[in-house]
Amino acid sequence: MADIIRKIKFNSAGLVPAIVQDSQTREVLMMAYMNAEAIEKTLATGKMHFYSRSRKTLWLKGETSSHIQEVRAVFLDCDSDTLLFQVSQRGGACHEGYRTCFFKQLNSDKGDFTIVGEKVFDPEKIYRKK
Amino acid sequence: MADIIRKIKFNSAGLVPAIVQDSQTREVLMMAYMNAEAIEKTLATGKMHFYSRSRKTLWLKGETSSHIQEVRAVFLDCDSDTLLFQVSQRGGACHEGYRTCFFKQLNSDKGDFTIVGEKVFDPEKIYRKK
Repeated sequence: MADIIRKIKFNSAGLVPAIVQDSQTREVLMMAYMNAEAIEKTLATGKMHFYSRSRKTLWLKGETSSHIQEVRAVFLDCDSDTLLFQVSQRGGACHEGYRTCFFKQLNSDKGDFTIVGEKVFDPEKIYRKK
Repeated sequence: MADIIRKIKFNSAGLVPAIVQDSQTREVLMMAYMNAEAIEKTLATGKMHFYSRSRKTLWLKGETSSHIQEVRAVFLDCDSDTLLFQVSQRGGACHEGYRTCFFKQLNSDKGDFTIVGEKVFDPEKIYRKK
């Protein structure tokens, strides 16, 4: 595991951006940050873990919602400073209830971003459980 | 244009990460950073422009290699702090000659990243022209 971590270039805050993509549809689901511990936990468990910069803690994606992401493949870019994970996504990746966090598309005519994604769950129901 | 820029949350350095995805194959090609000017130039020209943190300048992707990326769709995530561009990629996105910058895949058996991408051009030939 230490060998793998050593190959990755972390930024000055000890973090690396991680892109998460649906392994089947290839839809880009989200982008978040990982520290070495998040990567180690992710590889050890097969479930995506991230580092929250606001809460300053490690988190298991889907811990509250049960919408976990099971790792199918892991890629590192040419500069070794960005990771790409292909995953099997349960439910939706976005805390607002959408399949992907990228549910707002630029509409050039309107000069604004408009919602194009469809909700796959009700965040009110999912997150008030805790 | 100002309305669009206002919707995006830039980090303390005035930058936002941008994921670039092939609009047809949905392959993730690269991740780079944009400032407001890079976004404005990209939307005005339809060609991806980024901000180089090391060179501290705006750059047109493909300026040297001619491997430009034509914008097909633009998405903003739930937190409005990450952009996703679907593009038509000419040649290869990676300066090392690969179609995608994510050409190294984690091989769990070997405990290392191994090259899985195929070269689509010879970087020696492309970049020594200048």
